[in-house]
Amino acid sequence: MNELTKRVVAFREARNWKQFHNPKDLAISLNLEASELLELFQWKSSEDAISDKYNDLSDELADVFYYTLLMAHDVGIDLEKALLDKLEKNEMNYPVQKAFGSNKKYTEL
Amino acid sequence: MNELTKRVVAFREARNWKQFHNPKDLAISLNLEASELLELFQWKSSEDAISDKYNDLSDELADVFYYTLLMAHDVGIDLEKALLDKLEKNEMNYPVQKAFGSNKKYTEL
Amino acid sequence: MNELTKRVVAFREARNWKQFHNPKDLAISLNLEASELLELFQWKSSEDAISDKYNDLSDELADVFYYTLLMAHDVGIDLEKALLDKLEKNEMNYPVQKAFGSNKKYTEL
Amino acid sequence: MNELTKRVVAFREARNWKQFHNPKDLAISLNLEASELLELFQWKSSEDAISDKYNDLSDELADVFYYTLLMAHDVGIDLEKALLDKLEKNEMNYPVQKAFGSNKKYTEL
Repeated sequence: MNELTKRVVAFREARNWKQFHNPKDLAISLNLEASELLELFQWKSSEDAISDKYNDLSDELADVFYYTLLMAHDVGIDLEKALLDKLEKNEMNYPVQKAFGSNKKYTEL
Repeated sequence: MNELTKRVVAFREARNWKQFHNPKDLAISLNLEASELLELFQWKSSEDAISDKYNDLSDELADVFYYTLLMAHDVGIDLEKALLDKLEKNEMNYPVQKAFGSNKKYTEL
Repeated sequence: MNELTKRVVAFREARNWKQFHNPKDLAISLNLEASELLELFQWKSSEDAISDKYNDLSDELADVFYYTLLMAHDVGIDLEKALLDKLEKNEMNYPVQKAFGSNKKYTEL
Repeated sequence: MNELTKRVVAFREARNWKQFHNPKDLAISLNLEASELLELFQWKSSEDAISDKYNDLSDELADVFYYTLLMAHDVGIDLEKALLDKLEKNEMNYPVQKAFGSNKKYTEL
C-alpha cells in the first residue's frame, strides 16, 4: 500500500494540485466519488448494475480508493493500522453472539 | 492488502452479514461512511477538524476503506490493479502540460 | 414557501449562525442530511424502513428541506421558479415518447 | 407547494416511472442530486462556484427539491408540517442562550 500511496502522491505532485487538496476538500471529493459509484446502481438491482457497468464500477471504486489514500497520507493516518484498530472496536461493538445475522446498529443491539 | 481483505471478510463471515451485503447496499454504506467523515469538517476549517477530531477521522476513514475492500472483494475487482488502471486513464485525461496547477475538470481543460 | 423561508432564516438569525453558513458549507450540510435520510434505509427494504423509522424519515426530510430553503435564500434562487424551469428542461431531455417506462439517463435514451 | 407536488407527480406519471421510485431509490437519488450540487463547489470557494456555475446551482437545487417533494408525496409526509415540527424540536435542542454563535452540535452544547 505504501507503493500505491507513493504513486498517487507523485501523480498529484506532477500536476501541482496539492494547493487544492486541503483535507476538507479531499473529504468532499471522496464523497463525490462514492456518489458516482452509487449512481451506477440508481434505479437498478445490483445484478443489473454489475452487468451493465462493470468497468465503471472498477473506475469509481478506484477513485474512492485514490482519495482515501491521499487523505490518509495528508493527515498522517496509517490506513492499515486504522482499519485494524477499527475492526477491534467493532469486535466490541458487534459481539458475534449479539450481532449474528442482525442488521441492527450496535446502539440498538 | 489481500491480508486486510481476508480480515474484513472474516469479520463479516463471523456475523453472518453477507446476506445484507449486496453490492447496492455496500455502495450505500460506503456513501454513509464517506458522509460521516465529511461531517467531521462541517462548519469548520480543515485545521480545526483535524485538531478536534483526529481519532474520529481515523475511524471514519477506516470505515470507508472497510467497505471499499468488501465491495472490491464481492464484485471481483482487484483494487490495486483498478487504481493503477485509473491512474493511467487520468494521465491521459489530465496531461501534465494542460492540468498543471489547474482545478478544472478534464472536460473543461 | 416564502413564509417557510422566513421561518428558517429567523431561526438562524436568532442563533447568529449566518457566519458559518457560506454556500459551500450549506451544500455540505445538505449532503449530510440527505445521507442521514438514506441511512434509515441501510440494509433494509423501503417497507421496513418506513415501518421502523417513520418519524425519523419525516425529521430527516425536513432537514433536507431546511437546507434547501436556506441555500436558495442565500444565493438568491427562487426555488419554485427553479423547479419549474428544471421540469421544462426535463420535458426536453426526457420526451414522453422515448422515456416512457425507461430507467435510462437522457444521454442513453 | 401542493401545486408543485402535483406538477412533479404528473411529470413522473406521464413517463410511467413510478415503478422505479420506491422510497429507498428516491433516497438514493436525493443523495446523488445533493452530490451534484456539492460538486459545483469542488476545489473552489463559495464565491467562485457561484460566479462560475450559477445556472447549474439553480438546476441542481431544483433536482434536490424535486426528489424531496416526491419522497414526501410517496410516503405521505406533509413537508410543511414536517419542517415546522423539526424547527420546534431544534428550538429545544439548540436553545438560543446556549447555541448563540456556536458551531457545536446539540450533543456537545
